[in-house]
Amino acid sequence: MSSIPKIVILGAGYGGILTAQRLQKELNYNEADVTLVNRHDYHYITTHLHMPAAGTDSIENTRVSISKLIDEFKIDLVKSSVQEIRLHDKKVILEDGTLSYDYLVIGLGGEPETFGIPGLAEHAMTIRSINSVRLIREHIEYQFALYKNERRPQERINFVVGGAGFSGIEFVAELADRIPKLCKEYDVDPALVNIYNVEAAPSALPGFAPELVDYAIRVLEKKGVTFKFGVAIKECLPGAVLLNNGEEIRSQTVVWTGGIRGNRLVEAAGFETMRGRVKVDEYLRAPGYENIYIIGDNSLIFNDEGRPYPPTAQIAMQQGVCCAQNIVASIRGKAMRKFEFHNKGTVASLGKGEGIAVVGDKKYQGWKAAQLKKLVDLRYLFIIGGIPLVLRKGRFL
Amino acid sequence: MSSIPKIVILGAGYGGILTAQRLQKELNYNEADVTLVNRHDYHYITTHLHMPAAGTDSIENTRVSISKLIDEFKIDLVKSSVQEIRLHDKKVILEDGTLSYDYLVIGLGGEPETFGIPGLAEHAMTIRSINSVRLIREHIEYQFALYKNERRPQERINFVVGGAGFSGIEFVAELADRIPKLCKEYDVDPALVNIYNVEAAPSALPGFAPELVDYAIRVLEKKGVTFKFGVAIKECLPGAVLLNNGEEIRSQTVVWTGGIRGNRLVEAAGFETMRGRVKVDEYLRAPGYENIYIIGDNSLIFNDEGRPYPPTAQIAMQQGVCCAQNIVASIRGKAMRKFEFHNKGTVASLGKGEGIAVVGDKKYQGWKAAQLKKLVDLRYLFIIGGIPLVLRKGRFL
Repeated sequence: MSSIPKIVILGAGYGGILTAQRLQKELNYNEADVTLVNRHDYHYITTHLHMPAAGTDSIENTRVSISKLIDEFKIDLVKSSVQEIRLHDKKVILEDGTLSYDYLVIGLGGEPETFGIPGLAEHAMTIRSINSVRLIREHIEYQFALYKNERRPQERINFVVGGAGFSGIEFVAELADRIPKLCKEYDVDPALVNIYNVEAAPSALPGFAPELVDYAIRVLEKKGVTFKFGVAIKECLPGAVLLNNGEEIRSQTVVWTGGIRGNRLVEAAGFETMRGRVKVDEYLRAPGYENIYIIGDNSLIFNDEGRPYPPTAQIAMQQGVCCAQNIVASIRGKAMRKFEFHNKGTVASLGKGEGIAVVGDKKYQGWKAAQLKKLVDLRYLFIIGGIPLVLRKGRFL
Repeated sequence: MSSIPKIVILGAGYGGILTAQRLQKELNYNEADVTLVNRHDYHYITTHLHMPAAGTDSIENTRVSISKLIDEFKIDLVKSSVQEIRLHDKKVILEDGTLSYDYLVIGLGGEPETFGIPGLAEHAMTIRSINSVRLIREHIEYQFALYKNERRPQERINFVVGGAGFSGIEFVAELADRIPKLCKEYDVDPALVNIYNVEAAPSALPGFAPELVDYAIRVLEKKGVTFKFGVAIKECLPGAVLLNNGEEIRSQTVVWTGGIRGNRLVEAAGFETMRGRVKVDEYLRAPGYENIYIIGDNSLIFNDEGRPYPPTAQIAMQQGVCCAQNIVASIRGKAMRKFEFHNKGTVASLGKGEGIAVVGDKKYQGWKAAQLKKLVDLRYLFIIGGIPLVLRKGRFL
């Protein structure tokens, strides 16, 4: 057994990749063993998933091979699925093996929250992984193919998106851009196709200024989206969605973006959680565990007003950097740094050439916001992969 | 009422298009009214359907707008679906109207023959139209997407093709070419995918010389196709195919190419038929009707050895020309011409760069046959649409 500390990072999302890259940079030779565990051999750009989900961009522009981001001489990559975290044994049980750790970084990502709505888990699809968005894309196209081979049932070309938050709005915008192309390919009159966005809250995109939200709604309505605000999905059946206002929408396609919760593995490990999220300490550690860091969708951090920060790529990345620095400091017996979130702005895309954005006090809409979205994407590619990655995956920009 | 004869052509397949084009060329101004009825506003190249079905070529390379093939100043196009042929009233009932005729040309195309095999009509797909091949293509791709989102059930990536005749073999070859691309797109190990070709007869491609058939089987086996000769499909269930040797193949995808029969509308009209086909007279007329011509898949013509010619594009085209000439002759009171089939050869493609062909006494295999297949396709485009069509749709060649 080596006497150097073993660091195990679970998940190669925004948080996990940034942690791994920062550890790789800051640790000296033989100062620690670092292992990164991920279910796939690729990292994906979650904030871009709405495009391949709708079929408006390719999968390959949305993922990067992890081996291109990590120096495998310095970090071990294990492609496996985590089954269990055993806190008392300091072990992680994988699908096909076991890993011991001295330091554990949990960046496993969240899960869709269905709030117990009947049928949603069975019949709705979610935008959460490369596999899930390929399914959404193919499912939608398959509906068009079936429509033309059946007696033109309307449920094949009604599309329901649950939730008008970030993912719901960005997806609905891409879908609206995609429908005319599918109609052309399958000889379907676009006027027959319906896209419904159902949101229990009275409006869309919480956190954005009302004038930007209004702008977004106008843009999407013009693209053919029908919004149903203040209406909740009551039940999801095969072929239909029941709303709490008594309405029934016939549809074979429901994409649920209405909620996200922490990972069940984190609950199962025995941490105290709120909807699967752990309120971490100021250094990003799980309460009671000096050697366990929780970052990204599974961590809960409150702002000065006592409200939790929404789980975003931006906060996960900043957490990854801070967590890596704190682990290095801890190994070296140095002082750790408190996590502080620096909001660099928020951008939502509204399909081709359209978007809304807030940067500091400034608000943007239209093509300027769309350009900002591209800039954010480019910046991320640059951060994780430098110029080569920007050039390789930047095609979609 | 005009006193000039009304010619109604049902179906714009190989036979119908050639009839219409030849009538358009030979008839003088006001010599007859010609109406061409077709369910779609496009003509499609049936012998090319195996490619878009497998996803190896686009739909647009497989169809041509009828208005590009027909002079609408000379021929009326009616986009509608035929519901009934009323021989005694000399009327055709359409989905949305009625047409009277003096001369009727029936070129409605055949239908899949399932020989009463249970479940085949419900669970198997067929290669017979633009709509049906789009469905096959999307269904197959959807299976890959589902496979990655379920617990990797083998039935999603087992593909069964029933029948090893022309369509079965040409489709299976394209599918074998397509699978590696789908595997790459969906991160599936190609070794896990199975393509089964099930044929009740002891071998493939009846009509070809045994050495060419052997060559074809070798080529396809090398591409990963598993043949089951002398085995019949006993039943088709959701998710499985039962064979008459007791075997069960788990599969969500069954493409049936095992048989074709005449159109049920022809039977329903009251003609005497054999599997929906009408034994036409030497001028291609239905027995007992001097004004009704039946061409293509619905006609039955015997060769000198007393065996029926298989329904092919080649014979349908020659019938179209002959039928048009005979209608013109009949209107002018001239002598009609007896139909004689001139076999110009047979080519079967075996996927990219591979094929087998017979032209006269000569046999070809490999890339030469593949070139011949392209030549046949080009020649057809030239016949129906001249150089402009060759240039527009010739891309796939």
